[in-house]
Amino acid sequence: MNKDKKNAQEGGAGVVKTSSFTFDALKLESGDKLGPVSLAYETYGCLNKDKTNAILITHALSGDAHAAGIHENKDNPGWWDKFIGPGRAFDTDKYFVICSNVLGGCKGSTGPSSLNPKTGFPYALDFPLFTINDIVNAQKRLIDYLGIEKLLAVVGGSMGGMQALSWLVNYPKSLRSVIPIATTVKHSPQQIAFNEVGRQAIMADAHWKSGNYYGGPLPSKGLAVARMIGHVTYMSDKSMAEKFGRAKKAVEGPFKFTADFEVEGYLHYRGDSFVRRFDANSYLYITKAMDNFDASKGRPLPAALRGVAAKVLVISFKSDWLYPAYQSKEIVKACKLAGIETTYCEVDSSYGHDAFLLEVEEESHLLRHFLKKVFYAYEVTGEYGE
Amino acid sequence: MNKDKKNAQEGGAGVVKTSSFTFDALKLESGDKLGPVSLAYETYGCLNKDKTNAILITHALSGDAHAAGIHENKDNPGWWDKFIGPGRAFDTDKYFVICSNVLGGCKGSTGPSSLNPKTGFPYALDFPLFTINDIVNAQKRLIDYLGIEKLLAVVGGSMGGMQALSWLVNYPKSLRSVIPIATTVKHSPQQIAFNEVGRQAIMADAHWKSGNYYGGPLPSKGLAVARMIGHVTYMSDKSMAEKFGRAKKAVEGPFKFTADFEVEGYLHYRGDSFVRRFDANSYLYITKAMDNFDASKGRPLPAALRGVAAKVLVISFKSDWLYPAYQSKEIVKACKLAGIETTYCEVDSSYGHDAFLLEVEEESHLLRHFLKKVFYAYEVTGEYGE
Repeated sequence: MNKDKKNAQEGGAGVVKTSSFTFDALKLESGDKLGPVSLAYETYGCLNKDKTNAILITHALSGDAHAAGIHENKDNPGWWDKFIGPGRAFDTDKYFVICSNVLGGCKGSTGPSSLNPKTGFPYALDFPLFTINDIVNAQKRLIDYLGIEKLLAVVGGSMGGMQALSWLVNYPKSLRSVIPIATTVKHSPQQIAFNEVGRQAIMADAHWKSGNYYGGPLPSKGLAVARMIGHVTYMSDKSMAEKFGRAKKAVEGPFKFTADFEVEGYLHYRGDSFVRRFDANSYLYITKAMDNFDASKGRPLPAALRGVAAKVLVISFKSDWLYPAYQSKEIVKACKLAGIETTYCEVDSSYGHDAFLLEVEEESHLLRHFLKKVFYAYEVTGEYGE
Repeated sequence: MNKDKKNAQEGGAGVVKTSSFTFDALKLESGDKLGPVSLAYETYGCLNKDKTNAILITHALSGDAHAAGIHENKDNPGWWDKFIGPGRAFDTDKYFVICSNVLGGCKGSTGPSSLNPKTGFPYALDFPLFTINDIVNAQKRLIDYLGIEKLLAVVGGSMGGMQALSWLVNYPKSLRSVIPIATTVKHSPQQIAFNEVGRQAIMADAHWKSGNYYGGPLPSKGLAVARMIGHVTYMSDKSMAEKFGRAKKAVEGPFKFTADFEVEGYLHYRGDSFVRRFDANSYLYITKAMDNFDASKGRPLPAALRGVAAKVLVISFKSDWLYPAYQSKEIVKACKLAGIETTYCEVDSSYGHDAFLLEVEEESHLLRHFLKKVFYAYEVTGEYGE
């Protein structure tokens, strides 16, 4: 198969496996101790001899460790597959790419649906509240375990971008660059509000039972509503108009409030498929961590970034109204005030917040060239930029 | 009390009463027949001898007939109180103002919570699906009953604006002007999507029971979630930031997902108070009527408006992202193409969609002068403009 053809295919990184890394205990920002902690993770490409080519990819709210490739005997390309693989933006012929499921998640990492070793039952709401910084502290343990002293880059969109910012503030000496995409230093009240309505929908479900639904019927209707709200905010007015218009679909039966507009059918489909793959309690905990995130912990962000030698690329999307460009510009401004070498691009996309998953061509171009510059700078000078 | 002081007070229209008008039957656009039909309505000011000073105000999704004044022994100014009364935009010293609760509502007009004369029980989902045009056809019966041949104006914001457009298309000879505010010719898929998520939240409530909850516990949690979604869309990112920021409020108890951000507390308050005053089935029916509305019924709107002699004032608000200004401009364009004398103003407000209720000064100014012009034109020429 020629390379072009291979690149165009899904699963360009080939057949991949999810691994698991477990460590004894993590002290959380709240002071609580959690342990043992497992993180599910995948890697693509090879770590070079000098261990200078490792890129950590951090996922968004509903993501997982499976960012690229396909699993054996499955047809399930990872959530950022088009960006990762030989010749792609995160070129696995050059770079060693790592992605792990977040702490508190439900895709192999320790979270509310995991067994509490003290009781033998799922944690449910006994799982401690955690923060984006806690998620990153757990990732740092994984990176240490993989023997990587300094990451070439930490890259993520949406909540992944918050993790990238947390890395920049908390582990500036452990990375050479950071790429926060379609994200924010801290949630606005509108962003908190959308998350809170989703949480309320879950907790309103009679099956939620204060989180103790494991082994019984799941709070699927509530979680589906939460996911539907999410999807409305992930698209733009324009992308919805282009995708659905006011088209109606054939519906059967006398029920008056069936989904007769195509956009309604799409939301139902998205809601229904989500509840089969996501844990409602994880949704509560992770959205709360997003809402509580403040990259600089109340300090002015430039002060928190002073002296940081990493390079930063910030990307936003014009039609993204959930994480509007002005929030990316706040990151850029803070980085520049802190003297960090910062590049910014607002991509002219109509896809809304989803653009960070969909604008493959332009986004790949930006990522590819930025990474090359950072990687090449080291290769030539041998300096970490400290 | 001097007039200025009185104008500044709430309840400027004084103590008012809600009346009821009942007629035998209404043939709906679907072909279904509904009857008897009652409409709750209020009037403010006096109809003049020539019956040329009547203004119909049409309400939004959650509104009712009580647009102005206060009820006896109550402190409950109407939902548009600041605009209606002596010396206000709808000056009750000059104009006779009418507002009725929509067909399908739950504030005195016949709706799903009304008793079905055939069964003696509430209609629930046996209530027929109705349209915005059906709502307007019922209003027309009320206007006929009040002896008014020609309204000076039909005015409304949001869903009220859809009714105003329906009047313009379907009863152009029964009015001299129309003022659609913060509204649209038809819902975009994004607008449909937000309504659908609200409906799904209601129907996900275990107490909803396919609409048969009357006499038992109400689907309050689901309706509260629907209302919370609504409130997020009624405000702007900026107005939320100004009102709440990221302020937290004191919370008690160990519950992890309590409303600790002020914006969350606000949404809870709005959701909780709504369920005490609104019927969940009415919410389903009315939002469906909004989604199905298409002012021109699939024809090009200019064609549907050709030959209409009424004057039109269209108002939109800059930060309204639920009913964005481009939708108002579509109305303006269609009216101009149809040769209708049309005035348009986009008010520079940060209040989002709620602006039509809150931008008292600038909106009043626009309304006052437009109405004066329309009213005066008749007074001088004696012509209805046909």
